[in-house]
Amino acid sequence: MKRVVVAPGDGIGPEVIPSALEVLRFFHPEWEYIPVYLGYECWKRTGDALSQRTLETLKKADLILFGAITTPPDPKYHSVVLRIRKELDLYANLRPVFGEGFDILIVRENTEGLYSGIEWQEKDRACTLRVVSEAGSRRIARFACGCAKRRRRHLTIGNKANVLKSDSYFLDICMEEAEKAGISIDKKYIDSLVLDVLQHPGRYDVIVTTNIFGDILSDAAAFLEGGLGMLPSANIGRHQALFEPVHGSAPDIAGKGLANPIAAIRCVSLLLKYVGEKPSAIEVEKAIQKTIADGIKTPDLGGTATTEEVGRAVLSHL
Amino acid sequence: MKRVVVAPGDGIGPEVIPSALEVLRFFHPEWEYIPVYLGYECWKRTGDALSQRTLETLKKADLILFGAITTPPDPKYHSVVLRIRKELDLYANLRPVFGEGFDILIVRENTEGLYSGIEWQEKDRACTLRVVSEAGSRRIARFACGCAKRRRRHLTIGNKANVLKSDSYFLDICMEEAEKAGISIDKKYIDSLVLDVLQHPGRYDVIVTTNIFGDILSDAAAFLEGGLGMLPSANIGRHQALFEPVHGSAPDIAGKGLANPIAAIRCVSLLLKYVGEKPSAIEVEKAIQKTIADGIKTPDLGGTATTEEVGRAVLSHL
Ligand SMILES: CC(C)[C@H](C(=O)O)[C@@H](O)C(=O)O
Ligand SMILES: CC(C)[C@H](C(=O)O)[C@@H](O)C(=O)O
Repeated sequence: MKRVVVAPGDGIGPEVIPSALEVLRFFHPEWEYIPVYLGYECWKRTGDALSQRTLETLKKADLILFGAITTPPDPKYHSVVLRIRKELDLYANLRPVFGEGFDILIVRENTEGLYSGIEWQEKDRACTLRVVSEAGSRRIARFACGCAKRRRRHLTIGNKANVLKSDSYFLDICMEEAEKAGISIDKKYIDSLVLDVLQHPGRYDVIVTTNIFGDILSDAAAFLEGGLGMLPSANIGRHQALFEPVHGSAPDIAGKGLANPIAAIRCVSLLLKYVGEKPSAIEVEKAIQKTIADGIKTPDLGGTATTEEVGRAVLSHL
Repeated sequence: MKRVVVAPGDGIGPEVIPSALEVLRFFHPEWEYIPVYLGYECWKRTGDALSQRTLETLKKADLILFGAITTPPDPKYHSVVLRIRKELDLYANLRPVFGEGFDILIVRENTEGLYSGIEWQEKDRACTLRVVSEAGSRRIARFACGCAKRRRRHLTIGNKANVLKSDSYFLDICMEEAEKAGISIDKKYIDSLVLDVLQHPGRYDVIVTTNIFGDILSDAAAFLEGGLGMLPSANIGRHQALFEPVHGSAPDIAGKGLANPIAAIRCVSLLLKYVGEKPSAIEVEKAIQKTIADGIKTPDLGGTATTEEVGRAVLSHL
């Protein structure tokens, strides 16, 4: 029995999440599903993008299925995604990227580094503190090693230790943990890593790195899959796990039934893998492949199907 | 009359620089050329990677032609490149990337941000201060606007202002300067920018960004040109400009005559453009194209020519 909180959010979020939810319900009709309202629209209506009550509901969840959030250009608006990551201490951000000849898992530290929130402005400069803690580094390193153990037992540590002492610190801790776990490693400076992942994706298994480097690396790696449109992600904490398509709320196509629900459905596949149901996870992935092979595709993939039609087609293959 | 300091450095540096130097001498036999010895080999021999005397020589230069430096895994060794950037205050790092349908100039702030050198270790964490100063931001913004004025008058500001207040600060200053200069702008978060540059390089003209984002973005953009092997870069200050191929010292192929001198020769093209001799700069670029078209290529490009043969071929087309 699991408590699943469903947060469609803004824009195309409320369009793609129903398809994903149906797939999840197919496997787990017995779970409890709790919808919550949050995001930019919610902020415009209620003055609060993430109410205390919603936050409490999220904290009581086991699993969270998250849509997308519009980020307004208003400096008073604070990112909901970042707040949830922080409040729920979702310390590991996972971005799997795979295709012909490559299968990479990017494990991004999700709570500190340049996202520390420790910032100030002086007379003639602005400062942000990059914080790399021992505890934070150790838990993400262990997490990444755990992933590598279930995969090809290799870990690449993305860093910029040639410039940043805070990254030497991170690197040392990752190496210690990999050694303990019996995982082979290599270290790579983040700039060359980004390029090498593009040029030789097949060389990588699990990549662990600090927060903002992971942010950039995963978008770069998305190029290998033709962009962000199809990619799922997971944000994992000690008590909760949140699954979210990588694409944004796409206000330009919202409300037209054109949104591709595949990234959201892939979130369900990730979620199933996370709860230990790998065969179901693979089944979802295969149903997606079949749907695409049948030509049932939304316009972004060159098809004419609607969001709902794609969702139904995937479901029909389960 | 110019004083050109020539610093071949380590590995393939001393192999590719002679070809580049010959091309430069072809255009400017009358300039003064002063060789200096620095880098890892120098450190091993003398205990000093960059002596005070060499530094003084560099400071008196107008132009610096730089090869490559091996960075040993020794924590006591401090990067020569970073030290020179700091000592000579080479605040603008330029990386042009062009090819079929795109022509991008990446302008990277080269002195502050995460490269502040303000770092410390506490009991259970390591910190690096990211510093974005008004003066530093303003001068790089002006520089980038100056470049944009001589190009397609468009500036993209790479930033992460949705997370970093220090980047809101940077963004605001860049927008002010662009407005003053009459340059059109768009702002893009660095993660999506990296992806979009890969997907739609033709949309970009000049991109300005902070230090480490520029570091990563330029390596990602190198993918569009097939890697780092052929790319030149410039580090520009108020008194000096240093030109350096983007590739490293490549110890694995050093000493075999296999190194591709084209990146180094392209540095000469950049240098000529910098001193206002655009026709000569274009001539060098064309001579390179002809050499490649003639099939005179080093092994990395699938040819069998030596470093020297490529160098001579380029020269013969001038
Ligand atoms: C929206 C933004 C704050 C976020 C981040 O920087 O983490 C996004 O880029 C992501 O990768 O989830
Ligand atoms: C070698 C390293 C210190 C340097 C940097 O980070 O700037 C390099 O990556 C570059 O781009 O010139």
